[in-house]
This record gives sequence, structure tokens and C-alpha cells, in this order.
Amino acid sequence: MGKKKEFEQGITSQAEDFSQWYIDTILKTEMADYSCVRGCMNIRPYGYALWENIRDAFDRRFKETGHQNAYFPLFVPESLLRKEAEHVEGFAPEVPWVTHIGEEALTERLAIRPTSETVICAAYHEWVHSYRDLPILINQWANVVRWEKRTRLFLRTSEFLWQEGHTCHRNEQEAREETMLILDLYREACETELAMPVIPGRKSDAEKFAGAVETYSIEAMLADGNALQAGTSHFLGQNFAKPFEIKFLDEDNTEKYVWQTSWGVSTRLVGGIIMSHGDDSGLILPPRVAPIQAVIVPVFKDDTKTLVLEEAARIAAELKGAGVRVKLDDREGFRPGFKYNEWELRGVPLRIEIGPRDIEQGQVMAVRRLDREKTTIARGELARRIPGMLGQFQDDLLERARKRTAESTREASTLDELAEIVEKQRGFVWAGWDGTPETEAAVKDKTKATIRNIPLEGGQPTDGLKDLVSGAPAAHRVLFARAY
Amino acid sequence: MGKKKEFEQGITSQAEDFSQWYIDTILKTEMADYSCVRGCMNIRPYGYALWENIRDAFDRRFKETGHQNAYFPLFVPESLLRKEAEHVEGFAPEVPWVTHIGEEALTERLAIRPTSETVICAAYHEWVHSYRDLPILINQWANVVRWEKRTRLFLRTSEFLWQEGHTCHRNEQEAREETMLILDLYREACETELAMPVIPGRKSDAEKFAGAVETYSIEAMLADGNALQAGTSHFLGQNFAKPFEIKFLDEDNTEKYVWQTSWGVSTRLVGGIIMSHGDDSGLILPPRVAPIQAVIVPVFKDDTKTLVLEEAARIAAELKGAGVRVKLDDREGFRPGFKYNEWELRGVPLRIEIGPRDIEQGQVMAVRRLDREKTTIARGELARRIPGMLGQFQDDLLERARKRTAESTREASTLDELAEIVEKQRGFVWAGWDGTPETEAAVKDKTKATIRNIPLEGGQPTDGLKDLVSGAPAAHRVLFARAY
Repeated sequence: MGKKKEFEQGITSQAEDFSQWYIDTILKTEMADYSCVRGCMNIRPYGYALWENIRDAFDRRFKETGHQNAYFPLFVPESLLRKEAEHVEGFAPEVPWVTHIGEEALTERLAIRPTSETVICAAYHEWVHSYRDLPILINQWANVVRWEKRTRLFLRTSEFLWQEGHTCHRNEQEAREETMLILDLYREACETELAMPVIPGRKSDAEKFAGAVETYSIEAMLADGNALQAGTSHFLGQNFAKPFEIKFLDEDNTEKYVWQTSWGVSTRLVGGIIMSHGDDSGLILPPRVAPIQAVIVPVFKDDTKTLVLEEAARIAAELKGAGVRVKLDDREGFRPGFKYNEWELRGVPLRIEIGPRDIEQGQVMAVRRLDREKTTIARGELARRIPGMLGQFQDDLLERARKRTAESTREASTLDELAEIVEKQRGFVWAGWDGTPETEAAVKDKTKATIRNIPLEGGQPTDGLKDLVSGAPAAHRVLFARAY
Repeated sequence: MGKKKEFEQGITSQAEDFSQWYIDTILKTEMADYSCVRGCMNIRPYGYALWENIRDAFDRRFKETGHQNAYFPLFVPESLLRKEAEHVEGFAPEVPWVTHIGEEALTERLAIRPTSETVICAAYHEWVHSYRDLPILINQWANVVRWEKRTRLFLRTSEFLWQEGHTCHRNEQEAREETMLILDLYREACETELAMPVIPGRKSDAEKFAGAVETYSIEAMLADGNALQAGTSHFLGQNFAKPFEIKFLDEDNTEKYVWQTSWGVSTRLVGGIIMSHGDDSGLILPPRVAPIQAVIVPVFKDDTKTLVLEEAARIAAELKGAGVRVKLDDREGFRPGFKYNEWELRGVPLRIEIGPRDIEQGQVMAVRRLDREKTTIARGELARRIPGMLGQFQDDLLERARKRTAESTREASTLDELAEIVEKQRGFVWAGWDGTPETEAAVKDKTKATIRNIPLEGGQPTDGLKDLVSGAPAAHRVLFARAY
């Protein structure tokens, strides 16, 4: 990551430079900043509070579907990492190696986990004996490291936080069902909690996880027209079970290898939220995961200060009682207009303004961050109305993102057409693909767009659909896009 | 850690070999096991669920006292680790060094964090400018690594999970108040949540944190008579602020260094719970943090199976509705007696037995893990009674631990006396100390007991109290013990 930029005021506009807008917004809202370690970030309290809410939203869903959390070591002995050939090949170039403890050289080098299939499979080898031990449905919240040449706050950092699910099943069908269950859980959580619509589908072989039989992903469309792979769910088959010898005695008294899945989402979701919803005034946070859902800004002069602050404190207490994450901004020495700007920058969904006249008239003013729409609310109805307004905000935010995604989705029938769309408008582009890695590579070379996935819905080739490059009959209808 | 031990049945008794009892209990209850990485453990779902509840109990208290969570990098560049001389000296021998990324050698080695003062101070250097930026009250939940020669599951592992608070203040008094606020928060949380009484006090200089001005600790007495340092709170003074140049412009327009604290508790608390409360039947878990607070074991024959299982499911739903973490053990093919043993081993506070006769009589039987006391409860009162019984269990468990700690606390007026107590009975031993490192070392050499701390209560020397070794007037009244 580059050097920190100093701010006079405001942030770069999206139209001028979307990437700079993104960085400005993160630094200025104190979501995160660059750390003393190349490629790693400090996640600051405001950004971490958002991540905690995202984590809890996903964690609740994992537990509701029968998964349990556990924790496995940070280190992977070299011999273990090398057990699955494709896996080590995929991750080795980015792996940090521990060679010494203090002054002493290790006899075997230790990798810092880029993902934990190998360490966890070594445990499962010990844990699984009988069909009664299955399924194993375990998830881990952890830090992982993949050393990146080019990094971007939240979207691509050398160390990141994530969850990784690792499951073992008795047969192929169960494992395939788990893969799809999680894919749909991810889709639903992204839409419900982050107001971020995503396209679930299968990755091409070129883009699948190192060691998987099949990788499925959810793909989001961001406001700048780039796609974001927001989560992946892998069907591992028996690719790890065999080298790690994870075997069980089945009911029929024969020994079998387990069938496995793994799946993850990470702190890059924070970047996805920022780039999905933000505008030139800064962040717009989905109420369900926003650290602060409503901010109260009292407006007063010296002679009305006590009156207004006391009423503002009562409102804060009432809203807190109604389950709203509320903040009262009672800082002295800042004008209300300054506070309005600051909380808009920080993306707080609702602002509640309260002054002496409002008190007199028994009302308050609520302002939506999304569209600055103002609503006068009777004082007595506040605790009832605000949760409803937050729900409406969440719905409207999702609807807006859906509309934007639909408008950014086009169709191409020739490579030139695809290239032009990708160059001028970005977004998703539907096109036919013959299923060969050659045509996939040819499109990427010419347009920098990749096959995001073969969508579960709409991924079947329509009659007469042809591959963009080869002109052969299409095997799939796929979504191309440039991606982060 | 050694090799896994295979079990035929049961666990070693505490009287026979307490250490082996501890290991047996952890492995057999599937709290954790030995991982493929030397000195690191796999925290299995049952152990991790306990840790999650401990984490949430502490986290709630941190937030209630104005602290916020954040996340900082895993890696510490070598030059940064070396900035505070005592600090690096204390940790360097146990630090893993990353020297390569993939095939490429790094120009500067990276340490894996043993604790995060250095990385966080580098951030605070950037964040703090004015007195308006203070105080900074930040906590991090993270993994850290200190490579240990001898390890013990949960109590001492090369990688462990913990929280580390790092705060900056405007003046010395505020920082000292924070140090003591956290020490008392730790004491209260250990007592309330873990039913583990602890002695708060100040560490001797020999035992303080590398880089601190003063270290305070909470010390628990375990069932085998060994002490456990369960948490520490450090007053760092300006020891880090100066080399890291964390300065601010104060209201009086002069530039000043901040005053700092740091503090932590870790997964060793899980070991503390096990060794505080467990018995020859296995774990006894405090209800407030137990993953399962009540287990329902249905007792039936073929002809009453449906009747009993349906009623058991209704009871489970009712208790869940009353906020109880309840599990219905409806596994087939296991006799009730087998299930009783298993849940006793796993330390579930209450067992609820329900059979056809109970249903007929409109009642259930509840059995307390602590003392196997049986209570008949009218069916209609269950949802009201069980939460109360869990509260009573928690109180009784704390009271029992308090009593045991009191009974294990003695007084010595000569070194021989201390040596005899420590050798024969273990426990805490009060004694006079002249405050010099020489006599402290002499006691340790002869008895293997160390000064656990100078307790906040009772640490003042009584009239005429003399140092055990030198015979000089005691500067403090301290607690000696052998410790994990």
C-alpha cells in the first residue's frame, strides 16, 4: 500500500478518481489505515465494530445450521503443506516461512497459514473413526496471510481476518449439499445484512481454489463497475481426504474416505460494503451492521444548552431501550453543521436533530443518509418509528444496489462487443463460453475481464448461443467482468 | 506437549496424578488436543464454546467501561521490536522469525507478535496529536506466539488466544487509574463468571512485564495447591511513549508524552476453570460460561419412547425460551447411565432426567453436577426454577472455591517453615519480604515458590514482621506459592 495522504478537507469525488475516493473515505472515517508492516493494515475501532457486526451476522447463521466454532494452529509444518500437490503450488509463492525461534534454527520450516485445510485435515485424521463421527461441521474465525504484491485496504491485504468452514461428510451427495447450503447462506447474508446483492455460481476450472474439485462463488457488482468475489464455497471431494487419510468405518463395515467442503468470507466484505453503497459525501452503511445506526445532534445556544442536552440524553436512552445503536454527539466546540458532515462521512443511516423549537413543538427531525430525506417525528412516537425507518433504509439500500447491478449488466455476442462494454462501461457482461480454458484466456488477454462465474440462474446456454472467441456452440452462459 | 494417550475408560484420579487427571480430562471431554505443530493445540468445539463465553463476558465489560476493539498486524518488523530495550530482551528468545516469503528472502526479518505493544505504539504515534485525541482505550482479541520449551494444554502453549488492551492517557494519574480499573474488572469477572476467586496485587520487579514500570496481577489458587497468574495489568509509564514518540499538544500548549497501560487475559483461563473446579468425575463448569448449562436425558423403553421423547423436546424448547443453554441428549443406542457419566465428565451443571413415571406424576428430576444433589421439580415450574438453580450453582461453586483458597492459605515466619508448607501442602503462604531481589531469589532457589504478588489487601507489613531470609524488617507482606 502507498503512503498516507494528508487531507485538507473533504474526499476525492468518485467521478474524479474512484480508487482515491475509496482510500480517502477509509482513512478519513478512521475505518483503517496503513500499518508499519508492508501490505498489512490497522483495522481501527470504527472499521472493526463494522466487522464485528458482520462476523456476528454470519456466525449466527453458521450456528443455526449446526456448525460449531473451533481454533487450529497458525503454523503449518512444511511437510504438511506439501501433502496436496495443487494446494501447495497455489499458495507457496505467497507464504511467509518461519525459519528460526529466537536464535535457533528450526529443523522443519513453518508456514504461516494461507488457509487451514492441511492443519485441519491433520486433526480430522485423528478425530474421524466411524460413521458416527460424521458429519463434522466446524468453522474457524482467524487471521491468515497471503503475501500480496499489490494491496488495497480491506479488499486485498497480506494479512486478513476471515472465517473458514471445514466439513467432513459420509458421502458425496451430503458434501455437495453442504457446499450449496453455504453458498446460499452467503448469498442471503450478503443481501439481508450488507444490502449487497450477489450472483451465486460456479467458478471455471482456471479460477477454482487450489485443491478443490469445484469452487462456487458469490459475485457482487460495485459502484465503479468492477466485480468483487465476496465469498467462496468449495467442494473438495476426496482430494484432501486421501493424502491425509481421513477414513471411517461405515455402517456397512467397509472403510471409506470422507467427502469434504471448505468455505470462507473475509474482511474484504467491508470493502464491498464501502464500494457498493458509498457516495461523494462518504460512507453509507447498512443499518443492520452499522456500528452507529442513529446519531443525535443537539442544536442549542448558551441559554438553551441544558434544556436541549437533557432532552437529547432522554431520547438516546429511549432509543437504546428500543434496541437502536445510538450515539449522542454532545461534543462542545463543534457547530451542528460540522457534526452533520462528519456523521454523513461516517455513513450513519439516520441523523436526529433536536433544538429548542423542536422541544417546544414536541417533535424531532430525522434525516436519512441515503437521500437526505427529512421526516418530522412526534416526540412520543420516536422509539417506535426509528426502528421502522432503519428497516426501510435497509430495504431501500438493497433495492438501490439491485437496480444498479441490473443496470450494470449487459450482453455481448462478439469479443469486440465485450471489449467495448468492459472498456467503456464496465459492469457484468453475459456471453457464451465453450468451456475451454483457451477461449477464457483469450478474453482475459484482450479485455482484462475474467469469467466471474457460471451463474446458477441463467448459466445454461440459450438456443444457438455461441462462444465469443471460438464461435463453437456455448457450453455455458457466463458472466464476464473486471474484478478486484 | 507429549503424545496422545489412549483411553480404555475413565480418567486418572486427582489424588493419583493431578497433572495426568488434567490432561485426561481435557482430551476425553474433547476440549482440546495436541496439534500437528509442536507446542500448539487444537481447541475443539467444546473448549472453544467455553472460550467464546469467557470472551463475551470480558468483552462486555470492556465495552461498558468505554473500550473499543480494533485489530493490528500479526507481524512485528525487527527494528520495531528492538525499540524498547527491556521489552525485546524479555521476548526475543521465544520469538518466531519470518525470513522468507515464498522463495524470496526478506530485507528485514518479521517477528510473530509475542504481544503487540510495539506495533500498536507505532500506530499511536500516527494517531495522537492533541489532548483531544486522548484517552485512547483500545482492546484487541488476537493470537500471539511465545515459543515454550515445556507446554501444557491451555495453561502454557506456544500459540494462544488472548485479549490485549492498550491505552494512552494525558497524565500519570489517569493511566494509573486505568491500570487499577482493569485489575478490578479482571477480579470481578473471574469471580462472577468463572467462579474463580483471585488475589489482586502488584508483582515484584523481578516478575514484572518486560517494559512495564509496574505490573499488577490476579492470582488464583488451583485445586492442586499451585497458583495461577490469571491476568495482568501493566502501568507502562512513558517507557514506550518515549522511544515511539507518542506525543500530544496539551491544553497548555506544551508538547507532552502520553502515559500508557496494557493488560491481558488469555485461553489459560480455561485451564484455570478446569483446575479450580474439576473432580474425579471430570469437569465442573460454572453455569455462566458453560457451553451447555442443562442436559436433558430421557429415560424410556420401546413402548414409552415416543411419549418421553416428545415431552423431553417440549421441556428443551421451554428452557431455551427461558434463556437456558440446554441440550437434549436423544441419541439412540446409549443407556441413560452411560449418558449420565458422559455429561458429568463434561461438567454440565444440571442434568434433567425424565421418564414415563415422571410424566405421569407431572414432575422431573434435576441433578446437580457439583454435589449430585437431586431435586424433584413440578413440571409447570421448570422454566422458572432452572435459571434460579443455575444461579445457586454458580454461587455455591464460587463459595466452594473461596473456602478451598482460604484453607490453602497459610503463614510462615521462617524460610524452613515456608519450605515445609510448600513441599507438603502447597497453597499460598503469607510471609514478610524486605523488598530486595536477593531474598526473593533465595526463596525461589530453596523452595521453587515465587512471590505471586504483593496483595492490595493485606500486603502492608504488620508490626515487627521480618524478611524470611535476611531477617531485616519486612517492606511488604507477600504471597508465596509454586505456580504454573
